[in-house]
Amino acid sequence: MKGLKGALMFAQSGGPTSVINASAAGVFIEGLESDAITAVYGAAHGIRGILDEEFYDIGKEDKKELELLKNTPSSAMGSVRYKLKDADVDDTDYKRLLEVFKKYNVRFFFYNGGNDSMDTCNKISKYMAKSGYDINVIGVPKTIDNDLYGTDHCPGFASAAKYIATSIMEINLDAKVYDTPMVCVIECMGRNAGWLTAAAALANYKGLGADLIYLPEVDFDADKFVEDVKAVCAKNNNKCIAVVSEGIHDKNGTLICEALGETAARDSFGHAQLGGVASQLANLIKAKTGYKTRGIELSLMQRCGAHCASGTDIEETFKAGREAVKAAVNGETDKMVCYARKDGDVYECEYKLLPLELAANTEKTVPLEWIINNGTGISEEFVKYALPLIQGEPNMLKEDGLPRFAKLKKVLVEKK
Amino acid sequence: MKGLKGALMFAQSGGPTSVINASAAGVFIEGLESDAITAVYGAAHGIRGILDEEFYDIGKEDKKELELLKNTPSSAMGSVRYKLKDADVDDTDYKRLLEVFKKYNVRFFFYNGGNDSMDTCNKISKYMAKSGYDINVIGVPKTIDNDLYGTDHCPGFASAAKYIATSIMEINLDAKVYDTPMVCVIECMGRNAGWLTAAAALANYKGLGADLIYLPEVDFDADKFVEDVKAVCAKNNNKCIAVVSEGIHDKNGTLICEALGETAARDSFGHAQLGGVASQLANLIKAKTGYKTRGIELSLMQRCGAHCASGTDIEETFKAGREAVKAAVNGETDKMVCYARKDGDVYECEYKLLPLELAANTEKTVPLEWIINNGTGISEEFVKYALPLIQGEPNMLKEDGLPRFAKLKKVLVEKK
Repeated sequence: MKGLKGALMFAQSGGPTSVINASAAGVFIEGLESDAITAVYGAAHGIRGILDEEFYDIGKEDKKELELLKNTPSSAMGSVRYKLKDADVDDTDYKRLLEVFKKYNVRFFFYNGGNDSMDTCNKISKYMAKSGYDINVIGVPKTIDNDLYGTDHCPGFASAAKYIATSIMEINLDAKVYDTPMVCVIECMGRNAGWLTAAAALANYKGLGADLIYLPEVDFDADKFVEDVKAVCAKNNNKCIAVVSEGIHDKNGTLICEALGETAARDSFGHAQLGGVASQLANLIKAKTGYKTRGIELSLMQRCGAHCASGTDIEETFKAGREAVKAAVNGETDKMVCYARKDGDVYECEYKLLPLELAANTEKTVPLEWIINNGTGISEEFVKYALPLIQGEPNMLKEDGLPRFAKLKKVLVEKK
Repeated sequence: MKGLKGALMFAQSGGPTSVINASAAGVFIEGLESDAITAVYGAAHGIRGILDEEFYDIGKEDKKELELLKNTPSSAMGSVRYKLKDADVDDTDYKRLLEVFKKYNVRFFFYNGGNDSMDTCNKISKYMAKSGYDINVIGVPKTIDNDLYGTDHCPGFASAAKYIATSIMEINLDAKVYDTPMVCVIECMGRNAGWLTAAAALANYKGLGADLIYLPEVDFDADKFVEDVKAVCAKNNNKCIAVVSEGIHDKNGTLICEALGETAARDSFGHAQLGGVASQLANLIKAKTGYKTRGIELSLMQRCGAHCASGTDIEETFKAGREAVKAAVNGETDKMVCYARKDGDVYECEYKLLPLELAANTEKTVPLEWIINNGTGISEEFVKYALPLIQGEPNMLKEDGLPRFAKLKKVLVEKK
C-alpha cells in the first residue's frame, strides 16, 4: 500500500553469488536515503534472523563499507536454507514474523534469493496481507543458476558465467600444452538448469572453449559420451575438453554422479564418495582410452569469484536492490523485481515487477532448441543472449594486491 | 663466448604457468631487437621441436601479438616432458641437437623451465661446450612451485600465489555463509615444496584465510588432522577451512592421497580413483564428525589463471627473458637467470646469473622455521617474503568481456 512509513528489513537466503551483496548495497543505500524509512535492518542468516530477533542496524555502518559490498562475494548478512511450512498447516513461524515486524514497526520487507526464497517471500507476503498488517513485501532475485521465471536473466548469473568462460579459456590453453593425449572434463554448477554450463559457449566464441558441452536439460548417456570424446580426439590430435553440468542424468533421471559412483568410490572408512562427476567421467575416459585425463570442478569459485565478476552484473544487481526499495516505498507489494531486455541492437536492461506467486518455484531452463550437435553443443543464440551480460570489469578495490572486501561492524539491534 | 652472431632458439618445457609466455615475449622482443641475432626461432614442444626440426619463425609474428604473450597463460610454443639421457650413456639426441643448431646457425639457446628443464639445459650446455660448437646457452627459470635453487623466487610463483590467496579469501566468505557446520578442504599444487600452499597465509593476513595449513615439508598424520579440525570447529562455530598441499605424506613418505585412496575409490570399471586429496580429507572429516564438508581442488586454474596474475610477476618474468638474451649476447653461457632481492625496506628485484649445474635438480623448500603451530600454520616471515611479489594487476586486454590472448601465426621454419 502507498504512504507507509517504518523500518526496512532485508534478508539474504540460499546459495550466495559473487554479486548478491550488490543488491544488499542497493537496498541499504536506497533505504538509508528514503524519507519513508525510519530504520534499515539486515537479518542475520535470512528468515532465521527475524525469527530469532537477530538483525543488524545498517544505519551504524560506514557508507564506504556499504559501497564495498558491491564487490564483496557471498552473503554479508549470512544465509540460510529454511523452508517455511504452509501457513495452513502450521502458522507458528508466520505468527512470530508478524510479532517481530510489529515490535520493530517493519513496514518494508525484502527477501533476496532464488526459487525457494521467492516461495518463502510469497508465503510471507500472502500471510501478512491476510493478517491485515500493512507491510510492503518485495522479492529481490538472486541466483547463479539463472532459472527464475519472468526475468530476462538473474542477478549473479553473468558473473558466474564470466568466471566460467574465462577459466575455460585459460584451461583450454593449459590442457592442450603437451604433445600427448589429454582429455579434460570440467564440471559446472546447475542441477536442473544448464545456463552455467552453457557459458562454456562464450569461451568457444573466442576460439578457446570446449569440444563438448552437456546440459541437464537433455539425458546423458555415458556410452555415447565415451564415443563423443573418442570422435573429438580422432580429429583433434587426441585432445578433448568436455564441460558437464553437475546435474547431468541418464534417461531414467538418475544423476550420473550417482550412477557412476554407486559401485565405486568407497573411502577407507567405507563411505561412498559421491562428489565430482567430472572426476568420475575423467576416470571413465581413462579406463576406456588409456589417455591422460583430468577432472576439474569449478566448485565454489564459480559463485564467489568476485575478482572476475561482470561489471554489468554488479551494476544491474545493485540497481535491482535500489529499484526494490523504490517500488516498496511507492506502494508496491507482493512482487519480485525483474529484468527486461529492451528491443534493439544495443543491449539495455529495464526493471519490471512480477507477482511473487509467478516467481515462486518455477524453473526456467535453457531452451531445448539452443542445445545442438546431438546434445553436445550450444547454439549462437545463447552467445547472443549471454554476451552482453558479461561486459565490464569489476571496479574492485585492492590492498596489498588482494581484494579489499567490505568490513561491516554488524551491530546487532538491541532486542525489545 | 663474446662476439657470437647467429640465430636464437627458444624452447619452453614442463608444466606451464600464467606468465611463462612473458619470458617468451622478453626473449623474442629482445632477440628481434638485437644486432647479434639473425633469426628468432621458437621450438614447438620444447626440446622435441628441435630434435624434429619443428620451430616457428618469430620474425613473422606481429609485434602486438608478441606483447600480448605477457598476459597469455600456458606455453605458447607448446611444452614437453622429455628427459635427455646422459650424453655418456647415449649421445644420439645431443648429436642431433648439434646437427640442427649447425644447420640453422643457432648461436643462442634458451631453455625455459623448472628443475628438470634446467637439468636438460645444463646437459646441452655441457655437451655443446665439449663439442667445440660455439653457442651461448642460458636457462630461463619458470615454475609455480618456487623451488629452484639460487633465485629469490621463481617466475610464475607469485601469480599462482595471488590466485590462490584471492580464491581462498573468496571461498572463506562463501564457505562460512550458513549458520550450520562446514569444513572445507582446499588443495594446492606442490609435490615436495609447499610454497603455493603457504600462499594461504596471504589470505590469513587479510583476515579471510585458512584455519589450518599443511605443507609437504612436514609429515602429515590423518588422525591428528581430524583432531586439528575438531579443535578449530569447537572454537569457531563449527566452521573450519583447511588448505593442504597435494604432496602431503605420512611419516613413511607415503602420499596421503595414496594412503587414503588405497582401500577406497574404485569406479564402476574397477579402476582406483586416486585424485583429489582434498576430497578424501573432506570425506574423512565427514565420516568422523558428520559435518557437511567440501573438498576443493584449485587444479589447473591456479597455474593458468592469468586474469588474476601478479603485475610484478609479469614484469619481472618479461624482464627475465630480456636479461637472458642480453646476457647471451654479451658472451655469457652455461648460466641460469636468477632473481635477487635488494636489501632495504622497499622491495626491489635485480637479475643475476647462476651456473646451470647449481640450478639443475636442486629443490628449494619452505624453511622449516616458517612452519608453525605444530605443523598447521605459516609464520609472518612468509608473508613478508611473498607479499611484495603479488603486487600489481595484470594489464590484460579484454574483448567482449573476456581475455584477448595472443594469437600467433606460428609459421614453421622450412626444413633445410
